[in-house]
Amino acid sequence: MDALSPAQYTLIYNLISFTVASMGAATVFFFLERGQVLRSYRTELTLAGLVTLIAFYHYLRIFMSWEAAFDFTDAGALVTTGKPFNDAYRYADWLLTVPLLVFELIAVMKLSQGRGRSLGIKLAAAAALMIALGYPGEIYRDEMALRWTFWGLSMLPFLYIVFTLSVRMADAISEQPEAVRGLVSNARWFVVVAWWFYPIVFLFPMLGVEGSVALTIEQVGYCVADIVAKVGLGLMIYAIAARKSAIEAEGGSGQVRAAA
Amino acid sequence: MDALSPAQYTLIYNLISFTVASMGAATVFFFLERGQVLRSYRTELTLAGLVTLIAFYHYLRIFMSWEAAFDFTDAGALVTTGKPFNDAYRYADWLLTVPLLVFELIAVMKLSQGRGRSLGIKLAAAAALMIALGYPGEIYRDEMALRWTFWGLSMLPFLYIVFTLSVRMADAISEQPEAVRGLVSNARWFVVVAWWFYPIVFLFPMLGVEGSVALTIEQVGYCVADIVAKVGLGLMIYAIAARKSAIEAEGGSGQVRAAA
Repeated sequence: MDALSPAQYTLIYNLISFTVASMGAATVFFFLERGQVLRSYRTELTLAGLVTLIAFYHYLRIFMSWEAAFDFTDAGALVTTGKPFNDAYRYADWLLTVPLLVFELIAVMKLSQGRGRSLGIKLAAAAALMIALGYPGEIYRDEMALRWTFWGLSMLPFLYIVFTLSVRMADAISEQPEAVRGLVSNARWFVVVAWWFYPIVFLFPMLGVEGSVALTIEQVGYCVADIVAKVGLGLMIYAIAARKSAIEAEGGSGQVRAAA
Repeated sequence: MDALSPAQYTLIYNLISFTVASMGAATVFFFLERGQVLRSYRTELTLAGLVTLIAFYHYLRIFMSWEAAFDFTDAGALVTTGKPFNDAYRYADWLLTVPLLVFELIAVMKLSQGRGRSLGIKLAAAAALMIALGYPGEIYRDEMALRWTFWGLSMLPFLYIVFTLSVRMADAISEQPEAVRGLVSNARWFVVVAWWFYPIVFLFPMLGVEGSVALTIEQVGYCVADIVAKVGLGLMIYAIAARKSAIEAEGGSGQVRAAA
């Protein structure tokens, strides 16, 4: 690989640290604000906080791996140490967080018992399969035929999720109380759009973008995508849970006191 | 750069550590005292604590970077190690905390639903833009023309925030209950005045102050400004939330019990 410039190195270094801070802060926010919604919505905020907590852990590991892979000479020149930068932490992270993310989105809708659970499990399983199929393409990153094959395989569960969220969920949305229908619909479009980042960033090395530029695009892309997909969706789930709590509390069913 | 004297090195070292301690202590204070105010003001204390928590994380990183950038010879002489001191952590910090700070100030006012949210989002976006425009000026710190350009660009959203808080918010203040009107007005003047620190400290290297003196002024200036702006404003928000909670509880609406 051509050498990483100090500016590229520093940009990635600072962005990974920024992501650590964002994930940690979001985790504390979701866990503290969990008590602000009705009891029946607290599990969704637990899930939102778990997603960012798992990402916080993995980004700390990524930060340590990035630091270990490079060093500065006494004269201040940037050099590699021989230790590989372990990007597979991202796949370990996604294998846990991506199924949780779709599950949390379905859960906050409170569909009729059986339907919500069955839909949540199907989408979560598809999400896990999607990540597992992407991993070999990442490991054999210099063998383009293998990388394309696993990219293609991984796109199948990806498109199933996109199709389910954008087309098949229209009736689930119409079941929502009118005051949150817009918020819930926005949340699923948010997932559909934000998740396209990942297969596109994955493609860059296959489209002739090489060396340190490809590495920089990939790292910046994944950091930004993870903040948007995890913190962003979590905040939307929080807004839905808070709005639904306010509606149900106004209903005078005494649930406000129960939530205290 | 001319060499940092041991006294300058130690002053900065101790002040960074002092800031770590201040931010950590403030975080614990805001999170513990969150239960002392009514439920509807707890999110503001969550935000105040998140701001100091994020700063705590970044000041720990700044501390580690400062330690790694210098060393002492066996004879006790201060030398640089070749590892750069990474001051960009400050920009990563501000990109998260400055929008949260303005948002928390607007949130505690409890303006009528739509207005508060729209004003909060506009000011937070302006704050993020202001930081993002300052960053290139920091990275290319030896190129004075670039540094002036980005300082000037960054001043535009800065002046928009200052103008909005000091002039356009008069009616929002008059909406506040009489007993907290003074506190709320003070809090916005506090932001307007305290934030002037930053563009002024940024100017020093451009006004012919050079080398180790400029570095010392910059580090001391930013540490002091961060403590004032983050811990100081958080305490004012806490005072407003506590006063408003007391007023609403006296209103006899039974909200005290619900908040207990």
